[in-house]
Amino acid sequence: MGSLLLPGPTQVPHKVLMAGAAPMVNHRGPEFKKMIDEMTQNVKKVFKTQNDVFTITSSGTGGLETVVANFVNRGDKVLVASIGNFGERFRDIALQYGAEVQFMDFGWGNAADPAQIKAALDADTNHEIKAIFIQHNETSTAVVNPIKEVAEARGNHPALLIVDSVSGMGAADLRMDEWGLDVVVAASQKAFMAPPGIAFVSVNERAWKVAEANTNAKYYFDLLKYKKNLAKGQTPFTPAISTIYAVYESVKMLLEMGIDDVIAEHYFRRDMVRAAIRALGLDLVAPDEIASPAVTAIYAPKGIDPIKLRKLINERYHVVIAGGQGKFQEVAFRIGHLGYVEDLEILGAIAALEMALHELGHKFELGAGVGAAQKAIMSHRIK
Amino acid sequence: MGSLLLPGPTQVPHKVLMAGAAPMVNHRGPEFKKMIDEMTQNVKKVFKTQNDVFTITSSGTGGLETVVANFVNRGDKVLVASIGNFGERFRDIALQYGAEVQFMDFGWGNAADPAQIKAALDADTNHEIKAIFIQHNETSTAVVNPIKEVAEARGNHPALLIVDSVSGMGAADLRMDEWGLDVVVAASQKAFMAPPGIAFVSVNERAWKVAEANTNAKYYFDLLKYKKNLAKGQTPFTPAISTIYAVYESVKMLLEMGIDDVIAEHYFRRDMVRAAIRALGLDLVAPDEIASPAVTAIYAPKGIDPIKLRKLINERYHVVIAGGQGKFQEVAFRIGHLGYVEDLEILGAIAALEMALHELGHKFELGAGVGAAQKAIMSHRIK
Repeated sequence: MGSLLLPGPTQVPHKVLMAGAAPMVNHRGPEFKKMIDEMTQNVKKVFKTQNDVFTITSSGTGGLETVVANFVNRGDKVLVASIGNFGERFRDIALQYGAEVQFMDFGWGNAADPAQIKAALDADTNHEIKAIFIQHNETSTAVVNPIKEVAEARGNHPALLIVDSVSGMGAADLRMDEWGLDVVVAASQKAFMAPPGIAFVSVNERAWKVAEANTNAKYYFDLLKYKKNLAKGQTPFTPAISTIYAVYESVKMLLEMGIDDVIAEHYFRRDMVRAAIRALGLDLVAPDEIASPAVTAIYAPKGIDPIKLRKLINERYHVVIAGGQGKFQEVAFRIGHLGYVEDLEILGAIAALEMALHELGHKFELGAGVGAAQKAIMSHRIK
Repeated sequence: MGSLLLPGPTQVPHKVLMAGAAPMVNHRGPEFKKMIDEMTQNVKKVFKTQNDVFTITSSGTGGLETVVANFVNRGDKVLVASIGNFGERFRDIALQYGAEVQFMDFGWGNAADPAQIKAALDADTNHEIKAIFIQHNETSTAVVNPIKEVAEARGNHPALLIVDSVSGMGAADLRMDEWGLDVVVAASQKAFMAPPGIAFVSVNERAWKVAEANTNAKYYFDLLKYKKNLAKGQTPFTPAISTIYAVYESVKMLLEMGIDDVIAEHYFRRDMVRAAIRALGLDLVAPDEIASPAVTAIYAPKGIDPIKLRKLINERYHVVIAGGQGKFQEVAFRIGHLGYVEDLEILGAIAALEMALHELGHKFELGAGVGAAQKAIMSHRIK
């Protein structure tokens, strides 16, 4: 098989796949309790939080709906800071739940500006804004947001700061408690190196008070049910046991590697990919200072269809990369480099990209991108 | 390891566990499309329907919420025919969504009475009742409902007939199209012989018209999104890929065995367990004519705590059976016999139950239950 270089689902280590193949257990029994208790403790270390973390059987979007459904009431004013497709998704979910959305669109390819968020909150003198929704890492544009600075910009405004870290967690630094984030969402199929199917939601004390007073129609995503069951080492509904086995194992591996070292590796991989792309004369969507350590978005060269390019890379060389998302579908493509990826897999993907670009008529020296990536690898690996 | 005889999660064949351990693929790519298209065609055969079947990453309860959220509007009158815990869950979800619930409680241990349902619908001359919610198999009391007769009782009343077949599908007969059921829910961790994490929802044309006009706040469970993506061989949100691999394999196995033969085996296992329980002088919750082929609920003998009994069976003999659910928690226990179970595993469970009952002071001849089960096995297997 080739390489899967998507911004999720990511490749899963063999050991994690095998952990996921264990026989079923009673999800109301002692073995499951022991496992989910230990997994939860470990996931908290990844979130850098002392708050509860809840395990929900759903995609990351289920996690996003959970945080809207539990923390926003019909008619509440909320601020959605959007820099791409998933910011728009937060807006759409909030609108579904009858929120009055103040949509701050910072534009695809940009990061959110904490100063503008601060200005919007300062202007809200009656504290009508109940929550701020923002992505940690925007997967569609491959941009990482300055969450620490956004938290500082929030200051003493009582709005909850709710962060979608689905593709960010474990790839870019996030310190839930130190930065004072109220609610954080993550998911299993990204830097967690596990199959999709599990979302994590962490909630601080301040946010609990809001959840307890929430009046939305909800059942499966009702966090109060998860809280009640967490104390028993259970989930309120039968969970995706195999996927939890896998996550249990992968989070242990993540902590053995050291979460900060894992994050540093993500930044190294990002820089390697960007060096290679530049050497091929292609344009990057995100400028260096806000470029995502999880995924890199690249504009296709003029006259080359990115969909055709990806198809060629996949069919000839068995490397799967991601297409442009939303409005970038016909102009860009993305290389995921989060989770479980070896240097040479990225090198191979660069080589495949070169050959496909060459076949489609883009002019450059074959090997130029690979050479730039090799330089990055050697300067990183040889101390 | 011992045996897991729960009414879900059930045991999973090794081949299915291994299928679930395959490496990740792009859930928007051609391999996944091929797999989910084929799986969906096969699941439709299990449902005995030509209608679409949607694959949702959630527990069975997520499926139950999906059918409330998509087919009931705030203020709608709905009839919930309840015979136990999951009937009450349907009521609770419908109440969450602002429905006016006509709760027909047939009592724990009974089946729903089609004549009473007919009378309720006949009395609804203005057709205010928009939907009828009912369990195919009520897991808590181990009773199977006469769904065909309920469908006949519905007759020409325009209310949608919405059936929770989470624990029934593949264990008791259900013919969605032939019986004219509008919406049916199932889940992966029951007779499907796969790990939990996937719910299936099938919807007929009549019900689609209702879904299209539905106004509830919903996003992750919005069936219109699933329908739009099904045509592309995709799910709207990243699905639990490993669990889908497993279900893909297990549904193929189910069809190879022949769905009607699988159902007949469930009835045989039910009768074997009931013969054994009677030989031990214990009382069954459900009378013969409505007894579930998926699970058997048994009253603990006077003076014996069912929780202690189960603990003993588990710790000494490594057999996991289920507790009483809801109001039956302190009076009953349940033996699951659905999905992937061998004759001798049930025999072993009966033997373990005997030894634990004996240790706790219940008076009977050791081996009496096993003997009755052996008789049932031999008369079934030797033609």
